[in-house]
Amino acid sequence: MNFRLILKNLGIVMMIGAAAMLPSLIVSVIYAQNDMIAFLITIFLMVALGYCMFRIPVRNKNIYTRDGFAIASMAWILLSFFGALPFFLSGCIPSFVDAFFESVSGFTTTGSSILREVESLPKGILFWRSFTNWIGGMGILVMMLAVLPEAGATTVQIMKAESPGPDPGKLVPKIGQSAKILYNMYTVLTFILIILLLIGGMPLYDTLVHAFSTAGTGGFSNRNLSVGAYDNAYYEIVIAVFMFIFGVNFSLYYQAIKGNIKNLFKDEEFRFYLFAFIGAVLLMSWNIYGSIFDNIWESLRHSLFQASTIMTTTGFSSTNFDLWPSFSKSILVMLMFIGASAGSTAGGIKCVRFVLLFKTIKREVGRIIHPRSVYTVKYGGKTVDNDVLSGIMNYFFVYIVVFSAALLIISLDGFDFVSNFTAVAATIGNVGPGLGIVGPMGSFADYSDLSKIVFSFAMLFGRLEIYPMLILFTPMFWKRVNI
Amino acid sequence: MNFRLILKNLGIVMMIGAAAMLPSLIVSVIYAQNDMIAFLITIFLMVALGYCMFRIPVRNKNIYTRDGFAIASMAWILLSFFGALPFFLSGCIPSFVDAFFESVSGFTTTGSSILREVESLPKGILFWRSFTNWIGGMGILVMMLAVLPEAGATTVQIMKAESPGPDPGKLVPKIGQSAKILYNMYTVLTFILIILLLIGGMPLYDTLVHAFSTAGTGGFSNRNLSVGAYDNAYYEIVIAVFMFIFGVNFSLYYQAIKGNIKNLFKDEEFRFYLFAFIGAVLLMSWNIYGSIFDNIWESLRHSLFQASTIMTTTGFSSTNFDLWPSFSKSILVMLMFIGASAGSTAGGIKCVRFVLLFKTIKREVGRIIHPRSVYTVKYGGKTVDNDVLSGIMNYFFVYIVVFSAALLIISLDGFDFVSNFTAVAATIGNVGPGLGIVGPMGSFADYSDLSKIVFSFAMLFGRLEIYPMLILFTPMFWKRVNI
Repeated sequence: MNFRLILKNLGIVMMIGAAAMLPSLIVSVIYAQNDMIAFLITIFLMVALGYCMFRIPVRNKNIYTRDGFAIASMAWILLSFFGALPFFLSGCIPSFVDAFFESVSGFTTTGSSILREVESLPKGILFWRSFTNWIGGMGILVMMLAVLPEAGATTVQIMKAESPGPDPGKLVPKIGQSAKILYNMYTVLTFILIILLLIGGMPLYDTLVHAFSTAGTGGFSNRNLSVGAYDNAYYEIVIAVFMFIFGVNFSLYYQAIKGNIKNLFKDEEFRFYLFAFIGAVLLMSWNIYGSIFDNIWESLRHSLFQASTIMTTTGFSSTNFDLWPSFSKSILVMLMFIGASAGSTAGGIKCVRFVLLFKTIKREVGRIIHPRSVYTVKYGGKTVDNDVLSGIMNYFFVYIVVFSAALLIISLDGFDFVSNFTAVAATIGNVGPGLGIVGPMGSFADYSDLSKIVFSFAMLFGRLEIYPMLILFTPMFWKRVNI
Repeated sequence: MNFRLILKNLGIVMMIGAAAMLPSLIVSVIYAQNDMIAFLITIFLMVALGYCMFRIPVRNKNIYTRDGFAIASMAWILLSFFGALPFFLSGCIPSFVDAFFESVSGFTTTGSSILREVESLPKGILFWRSFTNWIGGMGILVMMLAVLPEAGATTVQIMKAESPGPDPGKLVPKIGQSAKILYNMYTVLTFILIILLLIGGMPLYDTLVHAFSTAGTGGFSNRNLSVGAYDNAYYEIVIAVFMFIFGVNFSLYYQAIKGNIKNLFKDEEFRFYLFAFIGAVLLMSWNIYGSIFDNIWESLRHSLFQASTIMTTTGFSSTNFDLWPSFSKSILVMLMFIGASAGSTAGGIKCVRFVLLFKTIKREVGRIIHPRSVYTVKYGGKTVDNDVLSGIMNYFFVYIVVFSAALLIISLDGFDFVSNFTAVAATIGNVGPGLGIVGPMGSFADYSDLSKIVFSFAMLFGRLEIYPMLILFTPMFWKRVNI
């Protein structure tokens, strides 16, 4: 492990993180609610420390997989740590563990909260909370690669470690260029969402907060009742549609811009995503019609919103789905695990993995029935390498292992199984709310500090797709430290 | 698919099944409680139908994998159907769906019940209920292979489809001989257990019932409060130890008889099984000491019993663990998924698969840190083939898929998530009781008929390790029917 190189990159991340805090500082200046000092101190610390780390001389500039993974995991931990300082220093969140949880939840686009109510918080702080969703959605390292003047070929390892999905797509041969295109598309889509919400009459501040959280599929709101506070079908539908849009692999948009719009509907992952989404909406509408809502329109409206918010792992809510019947709740819990598409801003295990996992089942059946035939798994017309399949099957298992380990530790707090189970599912899947005490009207406040730390790491494990975080906990990794 | 061959084998299974009902008939004659007629009718039907099927002329006697799988799945469905007749015809279980559930639960050694109380039932019926546990434990097809005078080489496909674990062990080159040795060891161990329970003063009838259910790791009792009814530490410890013993791969016992006792503790699966078991006992003892039991001895006693009954997927209970704290309940739920060893009478995913799955995680970490090295997974000193690993990883996924599908359907009944989740985990894992309404003091009686059918199939899927059942639901399989 090339420790100097890692530190240098972390220094750059810190300075970019400080720059990302500037919009929130401006908001805090405009509203003048005493949160300004907290931002100033944090920015100063990040720039100072970041600059010192950046100045470290590096002998070997090659970034190997392990270095890329280490940069990603450490960058996210460090950024979450400093991102917590505004919450903590402003006194909005008096416990640092809580502030760290909230910051991790923001950057990882989870949207789980330890705050029981948010409307009393300063505007700058709430802005920062949603802005972390926006940065975390596309990724701080992708931002770094987009901003840096020259990114070498080996920086693909950094991109690989941060981008969700089994095959992090380079759109164009140059990494830096790909990162720029991604951020441009991301910004344009966010801008369109802002315009649409403003047209609907949402106040500017609320619009920005919700647009950032929607784009990052994070789900932090400045309202206690989340999007449900407005009880406005237009907002809900616009946000539901945009959550869905941000849950699509961005490389499909790039191809669409290039003229291959057909590719979107040919894409196997997109079809699975769309089909599962529509299926969930229809099944839940049928299930809640009559029992929860008296008319089919209301049932469809809330099913649409909840399916979108949970499947894209955003975590807004338009109603308290914790009160829905078991069948709908089971669907929502499953969507928490499935998640949206690779190469999007969403979390969960990702649709493409499920597409390929289901194909391995078909392959096994084929092997039993016709043992002499050779069965290969195809995706998009191409044969999928056995190593890729093996990696995906392994990912499914390691996801459940991390899930189970977290569940075991947090169950020491003694809360009920449903709350515990969905709390872990919602954090590792970067969803936000779960059921029971962590339902849409609840919060993570009642869990112990130990559990909050476990949840924080579950969010980071989920966002970085396990391995970049996991290697930090292996002796094999630390054996190779070179300074 | 060779349909004639399949039918012929099913005919043999039916006749053996009829023979297996004779001890219960004798018990019903001794106690003369009006259940005799039900047994006589069932035995007559099975022999008559079985004989007709057996007489079908077969042209091609080769058994391919698909035929072996079809024989296994159809034999289990057929046997469960006829096994339900004594419950139904005697009027003990007036609904046939309920009777089928109870029969499947018996043969698959699950031990879940739709009966709210059992002590009023005739002795012959309760004897049959436990005896199905015993037959299902080692397997009806293994019994067939042990009984048939000559079993050809291709009958390994039948053994493969029924024996739990990724590598169903032939103990000796001849299949029929292996099956005989397995049943002999099984019978001897059951006999030792019977002696030990009789020494402790348990009545003969109760002893037989509990010995059969323990040996098959099934868990049907003739007492409403299960083993807890006796409140006898000796019984509990004897049964706990024997549940553990029946959860060990029988091939290790064979090796021990041949003089390789050391192999037991060298075996990676056994070490995992033992370590997880001891860990669960200690953690739960620590967790329930003070909160549920005032003294450490009671805590250890009940932790030992519950860890053994759940991990071996037996399903007896010595106390109402549904009242235990969350941490202990989480451990129990995880043990339901893990299960005991391959090649034992127990269910669940099996320890050996977890040993290998954890090794695939280690391999992934190695690949990230040293990408140029070649990583192979070793088990027992030998390199494990990639196809075997791939099969195991796929099994983990398909297990969760079947689990999720069942959970979704049964949640239509509207019961709470914990009951639903553990009910499916307990049936697919062949455990028996879950938590909530299906807890040790509850039953599956309140679920709808649709759910009971789903649970019945979940038990069959779990017992036959998914694929033999799954292929029945694929069009690819039915395309190749030759009559």
